[in-house]
Amino acid sequence: MDIKKYMLSIGQQAKTASFKIASATTIQKNNFLNNLGERILLNEDKIIASNKKDLLQASKDQKDEAFIDRLALNKKSIVAMADGLFQLEKLDDPIGQINNQKTMKSGIKVSQMRVSLGVIGMIYESRPNVTIDAAGLSIKSGNAIILRGGSEAIKSNTYLGELITQSLKETGLHSNSVQIVKMTDREAVTELITMSNFVDVIIPRGGKSLIKKITEDAKINVIKHLDGNCHIYVDQFADIDTAINIVDNSKTQRLGTCNTLESLVISSKIAKDFLPKIQKIFNIKKIEMRGCAETKKIILDVKEAKEEDYYMEYAGPIISIKIVNSIDEAIEHINKYSSKHTESIITKNQENGEKFIREIDSSSVMINASTRFADGFEYGLGAEIGISTDKFHARGPVGLEGLTSLKYIVLGTGQIRK
Amino acid sequence: MDIKKYMLSIGQQAKTASFKIASATTIQKNNFLNNLGERILLNEDKIIASNKKDLLQASKDQKDEAFIDRLALNKKSIVAMADGLFQLEKLDDPIGQINNQKTMKSGIKVSQMRVSLGVIGMIYESRPNVTIDAAGLSIKSGNAIILRGGSEAIKSNTYLGELITQSLKETGLHSNSVQIVKMTDREAVTELITMSNFVDVIIPRGGKSLIKKITEDAKINVIKHLDGNCHIYVDQFADIDTAINIVDNSKTQRLGTCNTLESLVISSKIAKDFLPKIQKIFNIKKIEMRGCAETKKIILDVKEAKEEDYYMEYAGPIISIKIVNSIDEAIEHINKYSSKHTESIITKNQENGEKFIREIDSSSVMINASTRFADGFEYGLGAEIGISTDKFHARGPVGLEGLTSLKYIVLGTGQIRK
Repeated sequence: MDIKKYMLSIGQQAKTASFKIASATTIQKNNFLNNLGERILLNEDKIIASNKKDLLQASKDQKDEAFIDRLALNKKSIVAMADGLFQLEKLDDPIGQINNQKTMKSGIKVSQMRVSLGVIGMIYESRPNVTIDAAGLSIKSGNAIILRGGSEAIKSNTYLGELITQSLKETGLHSNSVQIVKMTDREAVTELITMSNFVDVIIPRGGKSLIKKITEDAKINVIKHLDGNCHIYVDQFADIDTAINIVDNSKTQRLGTCNTLESLVISSKIAKDFLPKIQKIFNIKKIEMRGCAETKKIILDVKEAKEEDYYMEYAGPIISIKIVNSIDEAIEHINKYSSKHTESIITKNQENGEKFIREIDSSSVMINASTRFADGFEYGLGAEIGISTDKFHARGPVGLEGLTSLKYIVLGTGQIRK
Repeated sequence: MDIKKYMLSIGQQAKTASFKIASATTIQKNNFLNNLGERILLNEDKIIASNKKDLLQASKDQKDEAFIDRLALNKKSIVAMADGLFQLEKLDDPIGQINNQKTMKSGIKVSQMRVSLGVIGMIYESRPNVTIDAAGLSIKSGNAIILRGGSEAIKSNTYLGELITQSLKETGLHSNSVQIVKMTDREAVTELITMSNFVDVIIPRGGKSLIKKITEDAKINVIKHLDGNCHIYVDQFADIDTAINIVDNSKTQRLGTCNTLESLVISSKIAKDFLPKIQKIFNIKKIEMRGCAETKKIILDVKEAKEEDYYMEYAGPIISIKIVNSIDEAIEHINKYSSKHTESIITKNQENGEKFIREIDSSSVMINASTRFADGFEYGLGAEIGISTDKFHARGPVGLEGLTSLKYIVLGTGQIRK
């Protein structure tokens, strides 16, 4: 079948379904989430069997361990998928909520109602659990969704898609509210990101280069997450123990996440106290330190940080270090090199804390807390479809509300414009 | 000078200025607005003189009356520009406002702070008053702005730009916070809408085809206003007098605005009562009626409405009419043909009103009120940079808040992720 035609028909079907799901009741949507959760638990064996086919192909294709790890489903991850749906079931329905009501001089009552965006196009790596997460978030937020997962997960996704369709039908929702793209060609992505008549927002997940490419080529709004080059600034007024604790946790609790610390900025007034202590921990945990010239004067066995180091999201056991002479210099350094994901200041000085909060241009800015907290669950969103490093529409962790919009509601009793 | 280089330098300068204006105090920003307002009033003669040069050229180029009308500045419009700035001065500063604060189980306090978007690229017709409005809105919302007005207004805009620069300097704000593009070539627009490193949002104003083209070619988020094909549905439970009043006002109070009524949808149960009455008014006011087959059965002297009529924003003395048998049919018709700007239902029936509000997918949805109310001032926003027919980021009238974003703020006391 022609890919263009195939994608167009998927787009049209999604658009039609989107009008239905937009006005589905909370009970209907929750019934679906519950039904799908139970169905997933009941069909564990079949999910694992479909996933085995993908895994077999992946090992034939000599995919690496990390890839296989993302692709693989097991009893634990299947229970986690179902639990995610049960949790979504419990969250408040954002759709139909009324905000900011006020009565104007003309007599009209103006407010804003939360509504769905329409059709989401989701492009993601070979992680079949995302299929279920994204379907659940999309339905709860009243959107139709087109899911285009990595081609290596096609067997798993196709089977999960069947379960989703069964649950949609059984709970009276339009069966095209969630559609899996079954053509694995790259061209399908090109079509998806340019069908502006049918798709309202694109959410890409995966490598930075892929997301950049999608953003460049898309003719549709994109909620994008590029990279997480996160900083901590240890201020001259930092409590040293707090700083050690938070820097250690931010860097080493998990090395590969987007909210992991990648670069440490330290006040020259505290560096001599702080650096040897954190070096001890990093040596034990085998974190390579790459420092500026000033750093190398204070501690030995440190590699030199080059300009490009400060732009890096290592996603591994390396950290860059920069010593600065003032908070202004720290803020300038961070705003220049950071990917605008998450930055934290360690300080007991309120003025410096507030200055940092105000002047750092990132989606999450923290005082005396680990960068690892930048996460939809830790922020109480209850769920997360991604973390936006953009300022437009949604910034930071994106939960249900990020998948909605506000329309103006005007209630009159016959008012006309004078 | 090379246009690409010229625009790049404007972009870089705007980016640099944007960091400064983002953290300017409310007092500084208000001082600027006041200073510029006074300066405009003081320099009325020079503004009119610069505008005369543009008007002379426009009449040489045989521009039509409507064009000249938009281009011309006079004492009254100059006072209005200054008043707009004085009103902006009085509005609350959105920047730095803290929302949704909550304390999580981990002990961290999470909230959202309103911040500016960065750099706005504004593209607009030959209306020099927009130069002042947009500069004021941009500064108050903490953004830098690049203004690219119609080439026919270049003399007026250049002079207004000088006044803006003087006021920026005199009140201690970065002089590149507002920049006027002085190269009138089309290529300047192409550069502006693709400089994604320097520009954060594009706001185009003008004809539908221009906006469509800009949206298609832009590599940057666009807050766009396409057309206003607004509908009123006269429900079977409408109060006839209210319906007559509101339909008359919505269509005839001003013919050329985007919130003017373009298409009338009427319940078949009330059409026989309603149509002859509204026809009387429309005949007096010389509004041409184009109706469906059912309409033509009820009233005479009505042209036939063709399929394309229902898609039209006439922006003139014509209205299309469609008779439907149910509210569901009305909603389906409107969601199909409307440009998703503004629609109103006239009804005394609460259930139908609520259904209309819920199911109509437009930026403003009204009950028993004139579509002419869809306006930033009427909604109490205090100012308006445009009306968004998009769902993404901002929908409906866009005031100061639509030019901002929310960043997450996390306040800890040493918390680490477990």
